[in-house]
Amino acid sequence: MIKIAVDAVGGDHYPQNPVAGAINAVSERDSMHIILLGPEKLISEEIEKQGYSGNKISVVNAPDIIGMHESPATAIKTKQNSSIAVGLTMHAKQMCDAFFSAGNTGALLGASMFILGKIEGVHRPTIGSIYPSIDGNKFMLDVGANIDVKPEALVQFGLMGKIFVQNLLSIKEPRLGLMNVGEEEEKGREAVRQAYQLLKNRTDFVGNIEGRDILQGKADVYICDGFVGNMLLKLGESIPENVLRILKVSEIGQSLSDEEFGFIKTTLLTALSAFDYQLIGGVPFLGVNGISLVGHGGSSELAIKNSIFTAEKMIQLKVNHQLREALN
Amino acid sequence: MIKIAVDAVGGDHYPQNPVAGAINAVSERDSMHIILLGPEKLISEEIEKQGYSGNKISVVNAPDIIGMHESPATAIKTKQNSSIAVGLTMHAKQMCDAFFSAGNTGALLGASMFILGKIEGVHRPTIGSIYPSIDGNKFMLDVGANIDVKPEALVQFGLMGKIFVQNLLSIKEPRLGLMNVGEEEEKGREAVRQAYQLLKNRTDFVGNIEGRDILQGKADVYICDGFVGNMLLKLGESIPENVLRILKVSEIGQSLSDEEFGFIKTTLLTALSAFDYQLIGGVPFLGVNGISLVGHGGSSELAIKNSIFTAEKMIQLKVNHQLREALN
Repeated sequence: MIKIAVDAVGGDHYPQNPVAGAINAVSERDSMHIILLGPEKLISEEIEKQGYSGNKISVVNAPDIIGMHESPATAIKTKQNSSIAVGLTMHAKQMCDAFFSAGNTGALLGASMFILGKIEGVHRPTIGSIYPSIDGNKFMLDVGANIDVKPEALVQFGLMGKIFVQNLLSIKEPRLGLMNVGEEEEKGREAVRQAYQLLKNRTDFVGNIEGRDILQGKADVYICDGFVGNMLLKLGESIPENVLRILKVSEIGQSLSDEEFGFIKTTLLTALSAFDYQLIGGVPFLGVNGISLVGHGGSSELAIKNSIFTAEKMIQLKVNHQLREALN
Repeated sequence: MIKIAVDAVGGDHYPQNPVAGAINAVSERDSMHIILLGPEKLISEEIEKQGYSGNKISVVNAPDIIGMHESPATAIKTKQNSSIAVGLTMHAKQMCDAFFSAGNTGALLGASMFILGKIEGVHRPTIGSIYPSIDGNKFMLDVGANIDVKPEALVQFGLMGKIFVQNLLSIKEPRLGLMNVGEEEEKGREAVRQAYQLLKNRTDFVGNIEGRDILQGKADVYICDGFVGNMLLKLGESIPENVLRILKVSEIGQSLSDEEFGFIKTTLLTALSAFDYQLIGGVPFLGVNGISLVGHGGSSELAIKNSIFTAEKMIQLKVNHQLREALN
């Protein structure tokens, strides 16, 4: 029996979406139990409202709610009975196999580090994100957890990203690429140049990846620090909506009939749905001593269900065991 | 009479495109003279081939050609009779009012610094680029000339960018934004956090700009270091082509008729033509003591003509005089 704890008061649409995601997840699995964390009454009522009366979901009371824009440091310190703190503590005590939250990312990362600790040998735990391309989904990391990164940590991001895409994206022989401003090894910031030297003899390293290569899928793992990765990710996520808005205000866009614009809009949004962060499931905080996943605040029911299934896969495939082996 | 020197052997399509761009430029202006630089015979023959026999274009012999992928440092040292070196030297001696090249960017920047020098008070000359948005064209800088940047230099990028967009993009009261990973002033790298402190009391400063804000045009000047800016720019430039390629390989794309796909393609490429670097004119190397513009290697005739007109505008509007006043 796999047990996954889910923050029922995380994200922009709680408790509806976490509860619905959990109900949908257990209804598709025989051997899964979900522990929903949050103010007990609120969550129990929502479960009832959504018409679930089975025994595959339980509620654990966690009365404190951490707001999406609260200071992570303060929240962790003052709200010790938050869904995040209680859920991660249960995971640390092996009362569940994984924890997922679509809530305050900073608080989740901080609490994960504090409560779960790091896997031995890990310089910096990291958070990555799926990046769609013409060659399917790729994985970029770090995307915001680590702003300043040493060369050795960049290399580890590559190794952890490799295990992620092998297991979760089913890419058998992932190619590692280093985000940079040119192909040549002497390009870029000092830490990136040094990381190149540490990576260059690996057979899975395909060299520097430029901004124009991302959407082409020139590597399977895009290695970068969180300062660069966060901006590249958010720019990428904004493409579908803004391409349509640029079209709308353009001269040619103005000349389209409503029907023509609607046709292009529907077609493009469908083709680019992999960019839709409301649909994309959560990603693990790689390198912590446990399975802690973070989802977008705007996560839909589907995204939350998918996050739960990602957690399940990480448990079944023993991803953390693989990380330990790869890094030591 | 405005005199502009143009590298006739720069870019991927020489001497055709630079010569054609020059001919088109002078044919639209009464009081403009273009000096084309390159191997004399090659250029003169091309001018004749293109049927121009007027007196508004002259050729100055510069026999050395710097390749697009040559090491800038070596090229500047060994090819002292290159179009870039000869053209910039003529500009330094006030034999012309500006210099434009679509050639080796690194060599052009290096030679500009060496031959023209910096405007007094400038920390680091910088190169920016137009960034299209739903609110029209914006300006991002630096996009690759300066990889590691001090807070004071970031602030100057903002001031120089402001003068550029006021004069060249006709935005009267430009808003300055600082590229970062979140809205809060404590976010980001140390240099960026310090730059925020230096900028925050300015009335034209609108705060941090995230990756998702770029295409929305949340500021008119996007301030960043060249490491970040280069990747964000190249990712942006790759959007139109790759959105179409993602569409093409998607399930819904596969179900489109050739006619439907063609309709979407034509419409989108037209609407997004502002991203087309083959059409976008060159941008100035801001902060050097002269007017030195760099264009994309793939510059079309139109892009080269537009670059010449940008140079003309910078001369007429005394942009460098304005920069001097703003920075001192």
